[in-house]
Amino acid sequence: MIQNDIVDSLHYLFHAQSIAIAGASENPNKTGHIIMKNLIEGGFKGDIYPINPRSSEILGWPCFSSIEAIPIDKIDSVIIVVPAKFVVDILEDAATKHVSCAVIISGGFREAGNEELEKDVVNTAKKYGIRFIGPNCQGVTYTPNSLCATWPLMKSRGSMAIISQSGTVGAAFAGWSEDDNLGLSSFISLGNKSDIDEIDLIQYFSQDNSTSVIGMYLEGVNDGRKFMNVGASIVNKKPIIALRPGRTKKGSIAAQSHTKSISGDYKIFDAACKQAGIIRADTVYELYDFCKILSLCKTPAGNRCLIITSSGGSGILATDVAEQNNVDILSLDSSTKNILQQSLPPHCIIGNPLDLTGDSNAERYYEAVKRVRTADYVNIILLIFGDPIPETAHYVKKMKKEISKEIVACYIGGGDIQGREILSLHELGIPTFPTPERTMKAIAALVQYRSFLQRNLIKMEEQD
Amino acid sequence: MIQNDIVDSLHYLFHAQSIAIAGASENPNKTGHIIMKNLIEGGFKGDIYPINPRSSEILGWPCFSSIEAIPIDKIDSVIIVVPAKFVVDILEDAATKHVSCAVIISGGFREAGNEELEKDVVNTAKKYGIRFIGPNCQGVTYTPNSLCATWPLMKSRGSMAIISQSGTVGAAFAGWSEDDNLGLSSFISLGNKSDIDEIDLIQYFSQDNSTSVIGMYLEGVNDGRKFMNVGASIVNKKPIIALRPGRTKKGSIAAQSHTKSISGDYKIFDAACKQAGIIRADTVYELYDFCKILSLCKTPAGNRCLIITSSGGSGILATDVAEQNNVDILSLDSSTKNILQQSLPPHCIIGNPLDLTGDSNAERYYEAVKRVRTADYVNIILLIFGDPIPETAHYVKKMKKEISKEIVACYIGGGDIQGREILSLHELGIPTFPTPERTMKAIAALVQYRSFLQRNLIKMEEQD
Repeated sequence: MIQNDIVDSLHYLFHAQSIAIAGASENPNKTGHIIMKNLIEGGFKGDIYPINPRSSEILGWPCFSSIEAIPIDKIDSVIIVVPAKFVVDILEDAATKHVSCAVIISGGFREAGNEELEKDVVNTAKKYGIRFIGPNCQGVTYTPNSLCATWPLMKSRGSMAIISQSGTVGAAFAGWSEDDNLGLSSFISLGNKSDIDEIDLIQYFSQDNSTSVIGMYLEGVNDGRKFMNVGASIVNKKPIIALRPGRTKKGSIAAQSHTKSISGDYKIFDAACKQAGIIRADTVYELYDFCKILSLCKTPAGNRCLIITSSGGSGILATDVAEQNNVDILSLDSSTKNILQQSLPPHCIIGNPLDLTGDSNAERYYEAVKRVRTADYVNIILLIFGDPIPETAHYVKKMKKEISKEIVACYIGGGDIQGREILSLHELGIPTFPTPERTMKAIAALVQYRSFLQRNLIKMEEQD
Repeated sequence: MIQNDIVDSLHYLFHAQSIAIAGASENPNKTGHIIMKNLIEGGFKGDIYPINPRSSEILGWPCFSSIEAIPIDKIDSVIIVVPAKFVVDILEDAATKHVSCAVIISGGFREAGNEELEKDVVNTAKKYGIRFIGPNCQGVTYTPNSLCATWPLMKSRGSMAIISQSGTVGAAFAGWSEDDNLGLSSFISLGNKSDIDEIDLIQYFSQDNSTSVIGMYLEGVNDGRKFMNVGASIVNKKPIIALRPGRTKKGSIAAQSHTKSISGDYKIFDAACKQAGIIRADTVYELYDFCKILSLCKTPAGNRCLIITSSGGSGILATDVAEQNNVDILSLDSSTKNILQQSLPPHCIIGNPLDLTGDSNAERYYEAVKRVRTADYVNIILLIFGDPIPETAHYVKKMKKEISKEIVACYIGGGDIQGREILSLHELGIPTFPTPERTMKAIAALVQYRSFLQRNLIKMEEQD
């Protein structure tokens, strides 16, 4: 199913050892400066060739008047930040050095009414066999190669890839992943996607070992049927999460005027995602949260979740969301209840949610988890820390060694202690969220992914 | 409608000039220590009387063996942190100094199966005319009097009051208000609310000049009809926002086992809120966001909202939420469109959302807002800053001087600049939210409050 030619071209981009920046600038306010600066500060190990006829050196690198003037035979990729009308020339220049892949950050094409200019770019690239991302985009980041040709600067390595038709959604996603100390494998700003599109990119990331989950913000897809088929072939290996706005009439009109996407019918997109097993996100938080939980957790054995909480209220809020999203807040059997009763202080409320109450320390969570170790019918454990509880990560580490269930955490109302503990929990690979509702929605996405996998398994068995 | 006796009693608590702490402790891990420490660090100006027969001094204040032993005639209020079985004695002791109001933090009553002990407390308090909050609660904070008898420490003064049956929800709310530099007027942890309840408290805050909005987390109400009637009498003066979990069967069961509230039917509560004009929140974020926008904005003249954004994608996401929540993303008239076209760069997308595109600086927002100044049909302006845009607060300040429309902001994908700008925007009184979806949901709550006021106005006119 995967097309090898696009994977090869994108390989030259993501794993580039030599990058030309057409439109690099000494002026710190120009995009051509910011991109080059981020490439350097991101720690790129390969060679950088700034192209600008009016400079001899930019940010410490010798500058060239054209790509052709660079004294080597092959350049892996080129980042283009020149005004729209010069982009065709740059592509022709790039062809002299056998460039396989370009990133056209420059705007001023279809989105500004210049359809013809964009067609010229497409045709020129095709003529020379150059594949490209953009135009009118915010660049490309691929952390395994310390390649940050976007703004803002993204350095933290992680396993989530985000493909976005909105630079802001991508930047917000990257910012949250940085705050969470989780990082990204890649951020691709799609722009007008007049060549490389979401289908090409999910094919690339499906075989990229540094990426465990693919998140997408899309305002439309170029080929709905192909999107569905390619998606379906990938989700068995890696989860795909998609946020596509435009579910209302005015939202859909706004989407069309933004990226001039043929946005198509929202309901059809929705149905295609379901068919393919692509998980839908409804908000930017969900896009991030779903990627986060799916990148950190294994697929659970079922949808049954035990909530262990120091905050009764938070447990109830999580239960409501679970009930409405196909996560089963199961009843504990009487022998487990008895064991819990015996090992916990008498004022704890034994049930699901299991309320350890406000005086709970982290050790009490550990004691509780130990007692449900053998309860096979519990698939997921949600730990809600609803107070400033220290040492949560220390005890969760012990839990992880002793049980095989998936552990997810919520940390809320924890003052100063909370910030440190969340980072430590993430270091352990425990996805931790700031509210009971966001946490349970994320768990629901994990459960949904499991049901997609199960359905596909049944389909495959039927086909055998 | 307002009962003056309860307002008077609560006045002694919130405006206390002398507070006894029964169960104060030298041990820094004890609640009786933390509460006293927070009272001191919160800047309380009145007299503090720690009560503990085993200490002579706690945290620099002389300690007494009993309240009776304090050498003055009247103590305004007492905070009780002793074990449950001693609470009745403390109330009798408090009566010797004409205490009007107590806060019983101690747990171990109805929630732990000790119904009789709780009844004894209620009867004793009634006998001596002492009103009380709790038992089994996390205390009371009232910042206008620098009174923080809760944990965590809450110092930032603001105009939002939060009444909560969950300590964690209250603490999270307080933490967010602190991070936002907005602060609170009050946090009341209701606990078992066996005396003072939500109805008493909304009556108090309805006449409290330091409070502009009342937020509540409730797992049940003691008297549904009274709650509705009192609520209805208050919302014309101040907005009330309520989060009540238990909309699902299992959520409702969990609520009953948490605070042993007779939670009643969720649908009935929902209907009562609609009838009274109380705004419902569905999540803890909504509870906070709705209080925030309603504390900072005036009631808009209508539901028509113009979105001005640097991020096309964020504008679409906000439009979808508006469409589904009765906020009108109106079409601009052609003369306004023409003026905008002339004053903005040609690549901006003139419409609603008005897309200033990714290269926009803060001044461009100001230019745009100036051009819609006379468009009377625009009631609310949503500014989405979807990039690291500096000086937003500077230009919003200028806007505020020139237009009378309500301004609400979203700041997303703004890296380091974002954090500083959000605080500056809050200083200006502009509510600023972190995602397009949260922002538009908050605007919808503002619009809903307006429609409640309008409906009440019509009702009053009919009654005349």
